[in-house]
Order: sequence, then structure tokens, then C-alpha cells
Amino acid sequence: MSNFLFPSRLKKLRSKIGNQELDAIFISNAENRRYFSGFTSSAGYLLVTPDQAIICTDFRYTEQAAQQAPDWRVERIGGKPDWIANLVKELEIHKIGFEADDMTVNTLERFKKSLKENNVYAELHPTSDYGVDLRAYKDNNELELLENAIDIGDQAFEETASQLKVGMTEKEAAWIFEQAVRVRGAESISFDTIVAVGPNAARPHHEPSDSKIVEGQTIIFDCGARFKGYCSDLTRTLVLGEADDEIKRIYDIVLTAQLAAIELVTSGMTGEDCDAIARNIISEAGHGNDFGHSLGHGLGLEVHEQPGVGPNSKGKLENGMPFTIEPGIYIPGWGGVRIEDVVVLENDKARVLSHARKMKF
Amino acid sequence: MSNFLFPSRLKKLRSKIGNQELDAIFISNAENRRYFSGFTSSAGYLLVTPDQAIICTDFRYTEQAAQQAPDWRVERIGGKPDWIANLVKELEIHKIGFEADDMTVNTLERFKKSLKENNVYAELHPTSDYGVDLRAYKDNNELELLENAIDIGDQAFEETASQLKVGMTEKEAAWIFEQAVRVRGAESISFDTIVAVGPNAARPHHEPSDSKIVEGQTIIFDCGARFKGYCSDLTRTLVLGEADDEIKRIYDIVLTAQLAAIELVTSGMTGEDCDAIARNIISEAGHGNDFGHSLGHGLGLEVHEQPGVGPNSKGKLENGMPFTIEPGIYIPGWGGVRIEDVVVLENDKARVLSHARKMKF
Repeated sequence: MSNFLFPSRLKKLRSKIGNQELDAIFISNAENRRYFSGFTSSAGYLLVTPDQAIICTDFRYTEQAAQQAPDWRVERIGGKPDWIANLVKELEIHKIGFEADDMTVNTLERFKKSLKENNVYAELHPTSDYGVDLRAYKDNNELELLENAIDIGDQAFEETASQLKVGMTEKEAAWIFEQAVRVRGAESISFDTIVAVGPNAARPHHEPSDSKIVEGQTIIFDCGARFKGYCSDLTRTLVLGEADDEIKRIYDIVLTAQLAAIELVTSGMTGEDCDAIARNIISEAGHGNDFGHSLGHGLGLEVHEQPGVGPNSKGKLENGMPFTIEPGIYIPGWGGVRIEDVVVLENDKARVLSHARKMKF
Repeated sequence: MSNFLFPSRLKKLRSKIGNQELDAIFISNAENRRYFSGFTSSAGYLLVTPDQAIICTDFRYTEQAAQQAPDWRVERIGGKPDWIANLVKELEIHKIGFEADDMTVNTLERFKKSLKENNVYAELHPTSDYGVDLRAYKDNNELELLENAIDIGDQAFEETASQLKVGMTEKEAAWIFEQAVRVRGAESISFDTIVAVGPNAARPHHEPSDSKIVEGQTIIFDCGARFKGYCSDLTRTLVLGEADDEIKRIYDIVLTAQLAAIELVTSGMTGEDCDAIARNIISEAGHGNDFGHSLGHGLGLEVHEQPGVGPNSKGKLENGMPFTIEPGIYIPGWGGVRIEDVVVLENDKARVLSHARKMKF
């Protein structure tokens, strides 16, 4: 990712600090850290004031931080958290925001104790929407990385689908996908692959087991690739051999609901409005109670992020936001069907980013 | 893992609740959840009182919870956290412990709000050592799983080492290891593999890059496998071709320090005493400032857990505890050497669990 992106993200972050009348924001969430600074390590914090941008990390990562975020000051930390008191004092911070959805109760306590022991006073103010809100909108660079991740995931899925055989276990199928993702240049899968055969498919988040693919049963395959930090997410439902009428009927309801949501979603609509498009179709077909999860979710550096696209998602879907559309029907003892694409809102309409083929009857 | 193990773990947990005069403990840490209940999902909580053991999880995992933890009551949760108030009321809990190193500030706030809105009073008491302390000691079943993970990691490393070639990139080498781990039945690698060639090896946590293996330079290979939840951890330093005298000199210091710590560690010694055995040897050789991390760490369901084995580790090392012994010397611009084995204390002495060969000169 080119460094020139980060100043504009930092500017937006500083503008949010100003709006909340804070002197500084303390970023602990790993994806937010990467988003604002370009620094990709697993440990460290960002401290941002109107005129300072500091990466605080331990000796293992200071060299990497300096390389990945050349415009940031790098502060080596470790041991007791006196460094936080020292920085608050040096920068004359009186009110500092922290990420209350990420910071643990104990870390906050340690920070408070450090301030007190060093005779430094600053108000620690919980925030919850800093990186998350900004990250819902993707800039062109992010969209390109996301589309790369999606292309890799789609191709890896199609290669895997072509190799599925009756008698193959769910675990074996998941491993074929993972290898196919890696040889295409992704750093990893973006979440634990779900392969669920027959009755297992009634569990939306089934873990791949030694269950074998059976002719004529549904296979839910939910999978993704992570490319330069960005996560793809794709679900297809397949049948090897002949699908019976019940499978065809359920599949048709889910596909109709999915295509309707893609067709009708517009920018300015709330997440719950979008969810309702698909949910109403499934409910009218008599399966409202069998669709027990949200229609979709935003995705980017995390596989689940803003915007929400579920029955209680009050936020608006806007141009520049990518998200999944993935209705499903799950029937205990029988199995399930789920179909998922990623779309992005552009010119008020959804453009579909996923290109893997869907089963047709 | 057989279910008969969990009652004894639950008994120890309940005895800790009693010692702290709590009515209940609320477990949010994923590994602790798995350790006490056998439930392996990525989401959910445990609520344990002297006579109740409850898994609280959402609709995606209730079926799995019932299968994996047949003796536990499974409570389906979701949406607003009123369920916590309802359970506190039903079970007549007055003082409930929570895991302050795991729970976020916002989750705690939501719980407090739920109690208040439902007119339920209970004191929420921060705890930090519940699962962590118990998990430092491994029972026989755990030790067997850990040894399986270590054997898989060792074999996969040896296969990888035999395939390393001058000109191969760090990323390619890491991927060979990962495949070798998976085909041997591990569910995944236990942490992102570190392959660091030449000057890259000066960064203890270098990420594999497109840097290529160069003849006569050190390669630090730090890798592990996860088997049924248990994590192995192994580091070897290799050279393809001829090592120069400086590499031999540094390697010899590190190996001497490592073997001394393995030989001399005894149960009852503190983590810092054990660390000092290796650190003194490295310091006396003039490289004290080049060994910037702890000598080791416990490992099990997490790749880093108790006991600590570093310069500030006041806790005692006891029989039944496995941990790593991994001194290193890192010289910016030149590179580094690290050698790591896993040992377990038995009959007051260290038994080495790692069997991968070490480079000899």
C-alpha cells in the first residue's frame, strides 16, 4: 500500500478528534492501527494528536514501524506502562479518547494507575466508532485490494469445486481451498473455511469435520482469502449428482431473495431495509424462522466490519461501502442453503464484486 | 479430548471461586472456555457457580455446545445482553468475577447497564488469574496433545529444512512448513511462521518476505503446529553452505546458554532464575544487550501462556509445567541466532520434548 494514502486517513481521524473535543486518540485495535499508519504488526498502539502521530511498540517491532510508517514518530515501549504517562505529560494532553470496544478492563486500569503514579492528570474518554466508521467507506486503493482478494478467493473456490468428489471429507475440501488461495499469492485464508455437508449444513458456522460428501446432498462452502490485509468472503451451495425437489425449492427461494436484495439495494437505505428485502421473500415462502442470521456485513481489513446489514442495522448504506449479501435457510436434520456475494455501492446501486459461478438447476 | 477430564478442571475452578468468596465466575477468554468446558467455538461465555455450569452462546453454536459439552446447560443468547441480568437473577448471584484481561471496557459497561435496567444488583469483580494459573500445569491428556503437536511441528520442520535451497524466498520456505504441518494432521500452524535470512534475522519477529536464502548467511526458522488446540513452538538457526567464524562463535554462545538452562533448571526455581542461567552466559560472552527478549514462555492452548520465563518472572516453575527455552543474539545489520526447545518439568528436572536436529559445526 503506498504511503501517500495515510495522510488523508490521518486527517479524517484528526477531524473526528476535534469534533469530540479530545486532545488525542489512543488506537489499540490492530486493524485501525494498520489503516491509519500502515504499520502491520500484531502489537502496538497509535497515539494521535492534532500535530503528532506516534507509534508506540516494543523492541520487536520498532524497526518495522519505522520502515512501514516513515512519517510517524516511533516510541519504543515495554515493561511498566510509564511511557503512557510520559507521553501524556510531554504532549500536554488533558482529554484522551481510547477504543472501548478493544481495550480490556485491565489495560485501562494499568493506564490509569500509571498516570496517577506519575502525578499526571488526563481524562480517559471511551470512544467506539473511530476507525470503524471511517473504514466502512473504502477508498480506491482499498477497493482494489479488496477486489484482488475477492478474485483470488473466487478462483480458488472454482478450482476447489472442480475437485470435489463423493467420499471426500469436509476437512480435505477445506484444505484444497486453502492451498489454492495460497498459491495465488494471498497471505492466508480470511477466516476458517466452512464446508458443511448434508445435515451439517444446518449449522451456519459448522467446522469442517471428517464427514464425507454424499451424492445428492447440499454442500455449503463459505470461504475467503486475505490479500495485503483485505478479506474476501464467498458462499456457494453445491450438490454433487442429482438434487431432489426439496433442495431445488429451497435453493430457489434463497437465490431469489439474494438476487432481489442485490437488485433493489440503493445508497441511503438502512442496513435493516436491505435485510428486509431478502427476509420478506424468505418469510413469504414460509421459511422466515429458518433464516437466523443477518443478511450481510461490511468487510475490509476485518472479515466482519461496518456497515451492518441485519434486522437491527439502523445505519445507512452509502456509496463506497462494500458488504456481503448472504441469505440462507437452515433446517435441522435436513441441512441448509446459503448464497453469498460481495457488492459495493456505486452511483447509488450495487455492483457485484464476486464472480464465482452459482449452481443452476 | 475425552469429556471425563472436564469435571476435574471444573472442580478446581469452583475451588478458586470459593477462595475469592465469589458466587460465580464469568469466563470470556476463548482458551479458558475450551479448557473448562471442551466447547471450541469462537464465540460465547461460561458462567460457573458452585452448582451450575452454563455455556452462553448464540444460535450459531448452541448445537455444537450441546455436543461438545453434554454436561453443561446451554443458554442461547443474542441481541441485547438482558440474558446476563436474567441469569444473575435466576441463580441469585451477588458477586460475580469476570476476566479483566479479556473483557473489553464496553462489554463490561453493557453488562452493568443490563443489570441496572433490569433492576438486578450484583457486584462485578475483576479477576485476572483464573484459567491462566490452572492452565500452566498440564494434565496427562494435555501433555499428550502437546507432545503430538510438537512431534508434528518437528517433523514438518525437518522436512522443510531438507528442502531449503539458496535462492528460495522466506515466504516460500514458510509455506513449505505450513503444508507439511497440515498433511500431518495439524489443524493449522500455531503462529505465523518466522523465516528470517541474513540481516532480517536481527528482527526477532521478522515477517517472511521475498528475501532469498543466501549461501553462508544464518536463517532463523521459528515455527509451530496446532493439534487439537495445543500449540508447539520450535526455533532452529541454519546456514546453507559454509558458516563463517563469526556465525560459529555466536551460534556456540547461544547453544551453550540454551543447553545450560535445560540442564540446570529445576522445579521450585523462579522464571527469572531460569532466565538468568542463559542470560549470564550470553552477558559474559559480551552480548547481554543483544538478547532483548525473555528466555521462554509456557505454552498449551495458547502459544504464549503461563509460566513466564523472563527477567521479571517472579512465579515458580513447577513439575507439570511445559515451557520454551529460547535464548537468542541479534545484531542489527548482521543478523541473529536463536535456538528453542520445549521442555516440561518432571521429577524436578527438565525433560526435552523437542526432537528436531540442531545445526552442528
